[in-house]
Amino acid sequence: MSSKLHQVALDYHQGKRPGKLIVSSHKPLETREDLSLAYTPGVAAPVREIANNPALVDNYTIKNNLVAVISDGSAVLGLGNVGPLASKPVMEGKAVLFKKFADIDVFDIEVDTQDVDEFVQTVKNIAPTFGGINLEDISAPRCFEIEQRLIEILDIPVFHDDQHGTAIIIAAGLLNALEIQGKIPENATLTCLGAGAAGIATLDLLCELGFQKTNILLVDSKGVINNQREDLTKEKLGYVSTTNKQTLADAMQDCDVFVGVASANLVSKGMVKSMADNPIVFALSNPDPEISPADANSVRDDLIMATGRSDYPNQVNNVLGFPFIFRGALDAKASTINIEMKIAAVYALKDLAKLEVPAEVLKAYNADAMSFSKGYIIPKPFDKRLIDVVPKAVFNAAVASGVSRL
Amino acid sequence: MSSKLHQVALDYHQGKRPGKLIVSSHKPLETREDLSLAYTPGVAAPVREIANNPALVDNYTIKNNLVAVISDGSAVLGLGNVGPLASKPVMEGKAVLFKKFADIDVFDIEVDTQDVDEFVQTVKNIAPTFGGINLEDISAPRCFEIEQRLIEILDIPVFHDDQHGTAIIIAAGLLNALEIQGKIPENATLTCLGAGAAGIATLDLLCELGFQKTNILLVDSKGVINNQREDLTKEKLGYVSTTNKQTLADAMQDCDVFVGVASANLVSKGMVKSMADNPIVFALSNPDPEISPADANSVRDDLIMATGRSDYPNQVNNVLGFPFIFRGALDAKASTINIEMKIAAVYALKDLAKLEVPAEVLKAYNADAMSFSKGYIIPKPFDKRLIDVVPKAVFNAAVASGVSRL
Repeated sequence: MSSKLHQVALDYHQGKRPGKLIVSSHKPLETREDLSLAYTPGVAAPVREIANNPALVDNYTIKNNLVAVISDGSAVLGLGNVGPLASKPVMEGKAVLFKKFADIDVFDIEVDTQDVDEFVQTVKNIAPTFGGINLEDISAPRCFEIEQRLIEILDIPVFHDDQHGTAIIIAAGLLNALEIQGKIPENATLTCLGAGAAGIATLDLLCELGFQKTNILLVDSKGVINNQREDLTKEKLGYVSTTNKQTLADAMQDCDVFVGVASANLVSKGMVKSMADNPIVFALSNPDPEISPADANSVRDDLIMATGRSDYPNQVNNVLGFPFIFRGALDAKASTINIEMKIAAVYALKDLAKLEVPAEVLKAYNADAMSFSKGYIIPKPFDKRLIDVVPKAVFNAAVASGVSRL
Repeated sequence: MSSKLHQVALDYHQGKRPGKLIVSSHKPLETREDLSLAYTPGVAAPVREIANNPALVDNYTIKNNLVAVISDGSAVLGLGNVGPLASKPVMEGKAVLFKKFADIDVFDIEVDTQDVDEFVQTVKNIAPTFGGINLEDISAPRCFEIEQRLIEILDIPVFHDDQHGTAIIIAAGLLNALEIQGKIPENATLTCLGAGAAGIATLDLLCELGFQKTNILLVDSKGVINNQREDLTKEKLGYVSTTNKQTLADAMQDCDVFVGVASANLVSKGMVKSMADNPIVFALSNPDPEISPADANSVRDDLIMATGRSDYPNQVNNVLGFPFIFRGALDAKASTINIEMKIAAVYALKDLAKLEVPAEVLKAYNADAMSFSKGYIIPKPFDKRLIDVVPKAVFNAAVASGVSRL
């Protein structure tokens, strides 16, 4: 980050009123009568109703529009294990995005333990407060167990955005990229660099969408995950290959698709050059991708490239997912966010990218034209059609798969 | 509650948007640049600063203006152990009052355990999120241990409002009532009916203000707490009397002060009649007091009476305390709310009641006149001078007692 942006960002966060969130009342509060409804004695009425019928909590409180963004600060942005206090600006930022894009209220909760059992117990204990739980910036492999256990215990959606949010946006963009390149998931070979939360969840989702495990090579910091490795977590064991390939360079040779969810500059021009015809490179490390678009394009003119950055084409941005996925899940009063709902979100995003782009989106991005092509495979965050199409798709999938409580 | 008020209150809580709270951003969020400051990449700047210096969390997040209102729903209003879900309208209401009266942001947290250890651990784990903890509607005697342990563990204010908030307002009104009746705390005899959170905390605070334990009789549902009782909690043991008196009627005979924090209609006209000259009756059970003002006044014309109700004179209302006490504590970055700060709040409230009442307060209460007298011993909640005088007094006490981090 430039020192100028650093200072501008600090000024933005400080100001006369530090931080970003404000909690207020959306009900009238001017008179003594208003207060006697909001608090005693009037508040006893909804209390009694909910005590008699717990489902009415959705009618009389903000619970069903309230999501907890919860982190232990163990894997914050690209900054690592900064702990709960230092993670708070990020979690407040996430809350801001939920509100801005889907009118969902969020309490950010920073948790002062990195013990899995204690974290799970803490979230379970505060869960009655919320209509959904968005886990955020929790390190792998702890994040897998934490999410799985909370999904089993709780009857509200629990969603680790670094896993599934990322996976959903990647999948939407990648299906479109394959289509443009004239390939199909069932035959595409794929190398994924990064076996953390995003990498594992992306591969899991892609395999639900037609990709074949036998066509996938997963690469972590020690190289290709193959059956000679003896240091593998449960999640990595799901992607063990029988290949003899050892290095990232080995893996990328003749490969159709590269997905990078690792660190800056790990991919060389030579590696991209060695890929199959009409290759696809998703270099998603932030702020600096595994290889820059300039470098990748300098060695291939048949490439489709995506990054995590807003200043290049095809930004894979989680804000395309989590606000709308939770909006659909909350509207459906879904007990979980299941695979059907995730896939519905993928196709809603994928299909939206094929529609004509409205003038207001072009304006927001200072673009003269934008249409389904190698440079536009994913919708833009400021596209106001997102709130129409993605929640509806997720909602319908919740109902169809039997997890809606409506 | 009348069935009409019941329905009006339900309508108020439901509406098009259920519940009462809304979480939004108070920073600009219109452009892509705004978002890049609120979230990635700009948000990394405050994260880095806080990781280097944890105290800066107050500069870049809402932490130091954010209070958690936390309940397990075990002792909600007069309704008892309704559990966490049904307590949520009350906790949202408390949040509304914090905002309205002191511009403090609140997340209400409903906790799904009534195990003391687990509750303490849960609150400890989520504490980095907050600048202060307001415990609410937790049953005695669990509330005493929970609060004490959290105060010891955490370095932010932890305040069980049902204990100390109530105690502070009672003390302020009672000191004024004694003054008007020509009595002093050191000589006044007092009967307290109710040995729960409010009763114990009130006696503890009154003893700091000059009342003598030997002049106090504490009465619970089994009668006077004396040395013949064998069923006493640690807290009740602090108020064991050597008296032979057994019943509430015994205790009230010739007594100067009655404080009721128990249940409706437990005090008879005869009991009030048997009190000393110029007695003081604080019948604070809500919504129905231990004895109605009409009944009490029918047998004594030398009485000062207070209740918990807004439709009688001298309302003992916690909203006079908690917003302003937390405002002062947060402004001082106090590590706790200690006895000095509580006493400062008592005297600030007591003194304010003696000042001329502004026209706007008279208007809010449809009153022609209001001045320090038997019918006006405590300020009114809509008195806008509260936010000036109470936080300042608490702030100064925090600094003087060495618990401010400024």
